[in-house]
Amino acid sequence: MLNVEQIIYGRWVIPLEAETESDKSVLEHYAVVIDNGIIVDILSADTCRKKYQGTIEHHLDKHALLPGFINTHTHAAMSLMRGMADDLPLMDWLNNYIWPTESKCVNYKFVKQGTELAIAEMLRSGTTTFNDMYFFPDAAAKAAEQSGIRACIGLIVIDFPSAWAKDGAEYLHKGLELYEQYRHHPLITTAFAPHAPYTVSDDNLIKLNALAEELDIPVHIHLHETTDEIQQSLSNTALRPIKRLQQLGLLSPSLLAVHMTQLQEDEFEVLQRYGVNVVHCPQSNMKLASGFCPVSRLLENNINTALGTDGAASNNDLDMLGELQSAALLAKAVSGNAASVPAYSALRIATINGAKALGIDRITGSLVKGKAADIIAIDLDTIETQPVYHPVSQVVYSASREQISDVWVHGKHLLKERKLMTIDEGKVMQQTREWKESVEG
Amino acid sequence: MLNVEQIIYGRWVIPLEAETESDKSVLEHYAVVIDNGIIVDILSADTCRKKYQGTIEHHLDKHALLPGFINTHTHAAMSLMRGMADDLPLMDWLNNYIWPTESKCVNYKFVKQGTELAIAEMLRSGTTTFNDMYFFPDAAAKAAEQSGIRACIGLIVIDFPSAWAKDGAEYLHKGLELYEQYRHHPLITTAFAPHAPYTVSDDNLIKLNALAEELDIPVHIHLHETTDEIQQSLSNTALRPIKRLQQLGLLSPSLLAVHMTQLQEDEFEVLQRYGVNVVHCPQSNMKLASGFCPVSRLLENNINTALGTDGAASNNDLDMLGELQSAALLAKAVSGNAASVPAYSALRIATINGAKALGIDRITGSLVKGKAADIIAIDLDTIETQPVYHPVSQVVYSASREQISDVWVHGKHLLKERKLMTIDEGKVMQQTREWKESVEG
Repeated sequence: MLNVEQIIYGRWVIPLEAETESDKSVLEHYAVVIDNGIIVDILSADTCRKKYQGTIEHHLDKHALLPGFINTHTHAAMSLMRGMADDLPLMDWLNNYIWPTESKCVNYKFVKQGTELAIAEMLRSGTTTFNDMYFFPDAAAKAAEQSGIRACIGLIVIDFPSAWAKDGAEYLHKGLELYEQYRHHPLITTAFAPHAPYTVSDDNLIKLNALAEELDIPVHIHLHETTDEIQQSLSNTALRPIKRLQQLGLLSPSLLAVHMTQLQEDEFEVLQRYGVNVVHCPQSNMKLASGFCPVSRLLENNINTALGTDGAASNNDLDMLGELQSAALLAKAVSGNAASVPAYSALRIATINGAKALGIDRITGSLVKGKAADIIAIDLDTIETQPVYHPVSQVVYSASREQISDVWVHGKHLLKERKLMTIDEGKVMQQTREWKESVEG
Repeated sequence: MLNVEQIIYGRWVIPLEAETESDKSVLEHYAVVIDNGIIVDILSADTCRKKYQGTIEHHLDKHALLPGFINTHTHAAMSLMRGMADDLPLMDWLNNYIWPTESKCVNYKFVKQGTELAIAEMLRSGTTTFNDMYFFPDAAAKAAEQSGIRACIGLIVIDFPSAWAKDGAEYLHKGLELYEQYRHHPLITTAFAPHAPYTVSDDNLIKLNALAEELDIPVHIHLHETTDEIQQSLSNTALRPIKRLQQLGLLSPSLLAVHMTQLQEDEFEVLQRYGVNVVHCPQSNMKLASGFCPVSRLLENNINTALGTDGAASNNDLDMLGELQSAALLAKAVSGNAASVPAYSALRIATINGAKALGIDRITGSLVKGKAADIIAIDLDTIETQPVYHPVSQVVYSASREQISDVWVHGKHLLKERKLMTIDEGKVMQQTREWKESVEG
């Protein structure tokens, strides 16, 4: 018998490592063996019982075990503005609600406590990694670090002064400081996060891109979100934003292009050739009437497509299970093909594709030996997910967030039978109520 | 002090009676007073405490109280086939999975127990009335009656023999028998339910329509679901289905036209003129790639639009809260207008509009004096729905089914702190597992 740190026995284990579904995609009565936070074996429960002894053993005999979700586009702290203003056109929403509130309220504490609220929600809905973009990224990093979740923290760059930085040079400088602070952290990585082509100058884009290349970190940007963005870019530069980024040298496998609802025929080939990653945010795109991201065509063109919820002020949740269901359903409607983005693909979009986009797919995104134990358990033994003909279908089309019972990040048990283990839920609720008063005050 | 049967104190009461939202749409610290299953008063909590004494009193100080959801299109028993076959084009799905299973398995017991599973799920997600269409409607009616939920049971008519009836005459005859059996029932109503224009002959449509008029009950039909349906109808009859129904005399305020993803310019006027009700099933339409129902335009044209989940074999859940969120988001994307189908409208679509379509809006669908106490309570004091700036927004865009804590139908407490009071959940789970064996066997 080998002694190991932890064994999770699951009724089903769905590793999501293989690109396409097969009869090996769902392993029934299997176990995941963990040591030092790393998956050291995945084998049948029977064999496991003979071979390994865990210091801790979990028996989840009604549950499917999957890699945790990778929420590849968030503005975590904006959870404090959840539902503050809805059903409004984008510019009205920004000009009259979001921006005034940000001017009034956003500071280190707002971002720290807003991100705590967001992380609590994300862990309760199975997210083990998030990729954030917001002011005071140092506060977001601190919140992530304290909770034990994995995160890629965006080093925001925008041509406007904010409470965080006064100009491009200061955004870059503060970003580099944060990069230095976390470069050896086991769970926190960083990415440059220029807000959007229309809010960052050529000069700053060139500078941050050179730094990103030098440091080998990703670049995370809103791109081709709306028709307005395209029109404005054509008026100002005579180029579509993607063409402008191409000319500035930003298109690469390190780029995460978020939204991408506006794509011309020739742009699929460009994205494919440069290995650009697309981050799809279906609920945000619908809610703000931005358009439809052509996910099926992106996948057909071998363009890595990940999934994000966007901020809770525009979505209004950070629930990746709901989001991947929307992605699977909407792709069929948009492509006119009921077979497009099948359940298994939707799960890959929400996990391993996010890890690839962030350059951390050797560490997380699927359940295989050698990767970190970033694992979620979904209880399928409920009225809502019975009968279980195909666990993958039940997870994607029938389960909802409350069925996620347990979450581990790097082997650490962060959600245990629906209870947050590293976050004081009552304290987060109290902080949140207080922020509501400040925002409204 | 007046003695009454029951008082429900809620942090917020959202009656949904008024057509448009105002500052009276959300009543804070209010109470709903119930006697003999009927709402006898709605007033401020302070006044209520002075005026009424309830035999039973509920204090839901973290909850929003709303009228229960009206799921206006279901095939309840198909829950037993949930997730059996997904991600397939419609005809492959029907020919190779659904129809063979139905031939093999569908009988009284299948429908009774399948409907029990469905009702358990519906009550746990806030549905207080459902409008069903399936074989063995007598079994569905019995399941509804035993559970205490409100239901409109479809008297199915289809030109093909089934285990339920051998031909049009027998479908009609058995339908009439069921109508007679339930015509005085307080919670169960009936409607004729011709499956679709392409599966029911002119002759049978005329007959059932005459009967429906005579008995003053609705007619519930799938209509304009896909482009194929339209094309086939044009080839066979040189008429679009809606035109054919118009000529046969079926267009009226008693008609529930389900799906309606294919609408020409002139058809909006026709629907409006005849007072036809449309039932929107956004998730089913997306999943089967049927098309987009133009909900915003229907509402602009004053066409009563209700909401349904469709059967769990094609959706794959009966969760009206998820469905109304999809309806609100998708309408914005389809219309290109972020202001269309705001949260308040989405709730009306899921409640009072369904009651109107079924002709029971004097009895249910909103919280007003004189209507039945068909009420749900949604707990908004969770990480996922904090902070609460606008309860209506939180319900529509952030809450999910597990937050529905309590459900009453006609004053009877059917879900109490998440526990089903009239359904043995363990027995339903066991039956469901057994049916899975039969279906696969």
